Amino acid sequence: MKRMKRRQFVGGLAAAAGVTACARQDTGAPAGAAVTNQTFEWSVVTSWPPKFPGLGIAVDNLAEYIDRASAGRLKIKVYAGGELVPPFEVFDAVSRGTVEMGHGASYYHKGKVDAAQFFTSIPFGMTQLEMNGWIYYGGGLELWRELYEPFDLVPFMCGNTGVQMGGWFNKEINSVADLEGLKMRIPGLGGEVLRRAGGTPVTLPGSEIFTSLQTGAIDATEWVGPYNDVSFGLHQAAKYYYYPGWQEPGPALECIVNREAWDSLPADLKAIVEIACQAITTDMAAEYVNGNSNALRQLLDDPEVEVRAFPPDVIDYLKSITEEIIAELVAADPAAAKIHASYRAYLDKSADNQRISEQAFLQTRS
Amino acid sequence: MKRMKRRQFVGGLAAAAGVTACARQDTGAPAGAAVTNQTFEWSVVTSWPPKFPGLGIAVDNLAEYIDRASAGRLKIKVYAGGELVPPFEVFDAVSRGTVEMGHGASYYHKGKVDAAQFFTSIPFGMTQLEMNGWIYYGGGLELWRELYEPFDLVPFMCGNTGVQMGGWFNKEINSVADLEGLKMRIPGLGGEVLRRAGGTPVTLPGSEIFTSLQTGAIDATEWVGPYNDVSFGLHQAAKYYYYPGWQEPGPALECIVNREAWDSLPADLKAIVEIACQAITTDMAAEYVNGNSNALRQLLDDPEVEVRAFPPDVIDYLKSITEEIIAELVAADPAAAKIHASYRAYLDKSADNQRISEQAFLQTRS
Repeated sequence: MKRMKRRQFVGGLAAAAGVTACARQDTGAPAGAAVTNQTFEWSVVTSWPPKFPGLGIAVDNLAEYIDRASAGRLKIKVYAGGELVPPFEVFDAVSRGTVEMGHGASYYHKGKVDAAQFFTSIPFGMTQLEMNGWIYYGGGLELWRELYEPFDLVPFMCGNTGVQMGGWFNKEINSVADLEGLKMRIPGLGGEVLRRAGGTPVTLPGSEIFTSLQTGAIDATEWVGPYNDVSFGLHQAAKYYYYPGWQEPGPALECIVNREAWDSLPADLKAIVEIACQAITTDMAAEYVNGNSNALRQLLDDPEVEVRAFPPDVIDYLKSITEEIIAELVAADPAAAKIHASYRAYLDKSADNQRISEQAFLQTRS
Repeated sequence: MKRMKRRQFVGGLAAAAGVTACARQDTGAPAGAAVTNQTFEWSVVTSWPPKFPGLGIAVDNLAEYIDRASAGRLKIKVYAGGELVPPFEVFDAVSRGTVEMGHGASYYHKGKVDAAQFFTSIPFGMTQLEMNGWIYYGGGLELWRELYEPFDLVPFMCGNTGVQMGGWFNKEINSVADLEGLKMRIPGLGGEVLRRAGGTPVTLPGSEIFTSLQTGAIDATEWVGPYNDVSFGLHQAAKYYYYPGWQEPGPALECIVNREAWDSLPADLKAIVEIACQAITTDMAAEYVNGNSNALRQLLDDPEVEVRAFPPDVIDYLKSITEEIIAELVAADPAAAKIHASYRAYLDKSADNQRISEQAFLQTRS
C-alpha cells in the first residue's frame, strides 16, 4: 500500500469516545448505532474517457452516492483513464495499492486472469438480468471474490450496459462468406471468433476508431450501442448498423477495491460502498436504456443509416465458433473451468426462464 | 403524525456539537462530514405475507441495508400484511402518518389514485428495464412524486418481479372463444380486459387461491411467476401454465415514506434510503431471475404440468381490448392522461431499442 490516504479528524478520537459514552447512556439505542467520525479520501481510477456517457458517468454517480450516504466521510475522487494510470492498468494499480478503487471491465484482465472474462460478458452468454441473478443469487460473486483474492482485490458488480450492438459496417453481411477478409475493430473473445471465421480483428483505442472507419483502414467496428456510438459519430463513418451484439449480450462492469483499503473502512462505510455499487447496477442500465432509446430513434430517422439484423446463418456460425473457443479456454485454465461450470449451469436454467418471460413478452409487442 | 417515534441519544446534542467543533479544526475535512448521531426507529408495513419469497424478502433486505449503512441510526421494523395494518391499507396508513414507511404496489391504490397504476405495470406495457429507464431517466419519478404529493407521501421505486406468467389454467386456451365464460382470479386492468373478452374476473386473497382452483370454483388464476407460484403449490391444482404474463410485463414495487418522517431525516439518512431502494430494485429482480429459473426447471420436469404459450390471436385480441381500456382511463382522469402521455412516448422509443437488443439477442439463443 503505497499512497493510501486516510485521515481522522483532528480530535476525532475524543469525539468518537464521546459518541460511545452517549450511546452507553441511551440504554434503548441499538448496539451498532455509534458512527465513527473518521474520514477517508480515496481515488478511483477508471478505464473510461472523462464524462463518458454511461460507463464514465456511472463512476461519478457512484462517488456522489457514497459521498452523500456517508455524509462526506468517504470522499472518492474520480480519475478518467490515463489521468492517473493508463485505462488498462486499473487492475494493477488497485492491486498494488497505488489507488484504493478502480472501475472498469473484468475482461480487460485477459492474459493476466483469463477466467475474469466470465464476470463481464461472453459471446452468446448471459444477459444483464441473468448476470444479476448469477452474481447476487447464483454463487457468481463468491467465485469472483475468490479469483481476485490473490491480487488483494475485492470486486463488486457495478453497472451493466445491456445488450450491445453488433457494430458499424461499410460492407453488407449477407452470409458467412462476407466475414472472410473483414477487417474489424473487435477486441476480446469476439475478435477471436471473427479471426476463426476468416476475418481480421484489429485492436484500436477509442480515439482512433472514427478515422480508421472513415478512411477505410477498417471495414467495421463494434463499440457499445446507440448511446455511445452516436456520441462518437460512428453513424457518420459507416452505413450499416447490425444487431444484436452477440459478442457482448450483457456486460457487467466492476468496481474493485484494494484489500487493505477495504479492511480499513468501518462496517457502515463498507455497507455504503456495497449498496451503492448495487444501486449503480440499476442506474447505469437505466441510463443506457434511456440513452440508447433516444439515439436509436435518431438513427432510425437518418436516411444515411440502415439498421439491420445479422442473418440467422451468420449468427449460427459465430455461435458454433464461440463454443469451440470457450471449450479451449476452459481446458487451458482450471480457474476458468470452475467458473464456467457455474456460469454454464446457471445459463442453462435461466435461458428457459428468459425465453418464456422477457423474450415471449417482447414478441407480443412486435 | 400519530405514532411517529424519533429519538436522540441522551447527550446527543453535546456529542453532535463536539463533532462539529472537530470538523472545524480539521480545515481539510469536507464540509458535509459531520454525522448526526440522532437515531430513528421506524416501521414499514407491507402488502405481503411474512417472509414471502421475492416481494416480502426484499423488504427485509431493504431494512437490513439501511440498518447496516446507517450504523443502526435508522432501524426499520418490518410488518407483514395484516400484522399492523391490512395488506391493502398500506397507502392510507403511511399517508396518515400511522407508520413512517410502506412497501407494496402502486396499482393497489386503484379507485383512490387511478393514475398510480402506471407506476407498477400496465398490460402490454413496459418491461422492467424500460421502467427503470423511464422512472430514473425519463421523468417518471418526478410524475410519481407529484401524484403522491397531496397524500404526504414520498415514493421510491423499490424492486421489480420481471415479466410475470399468464397463469394456471384447468382449461386449454386455443382461441379467443375459450375466454368466454372463463372464471379466473385476475385483478386490476388485466381483470377488466378478461371481463370484456367474455370472462369472469374474480378477486380472491392469496390464501384462497389454491383451494378455489383445486375445487373448480375458478378455472384459472394468475399469481406471479414460477418462484412464487410453486411455493404456493399452484402446480398441484392446475395442468396448463400459460406464458407470457401479458397483464404484468414488469411490475415495479414501491417504497413510500410519510412526508413528515422523510423531512425529519438528516441528508445522509435520506441518501441511504434512496440508494438502498435503488439497490433493492436490482436485488429483487435478481432474486426473481434465480427463483424463477429454479422453479421453472422443476415445472418443465413435472409430467403433470404443461408449460404453453398463449396463441398469437388470443394475445392480439387481449391487446386490442387493453388499448380500449387505457383510452377510457386516460379520458376519465387528467392525472392519468398526463402520466400516460409520458409513459406512452417513452415506450414508443424504448420498444424499438428492446426489439433490436434484448429480444433480438434472446432469439439467437433459441
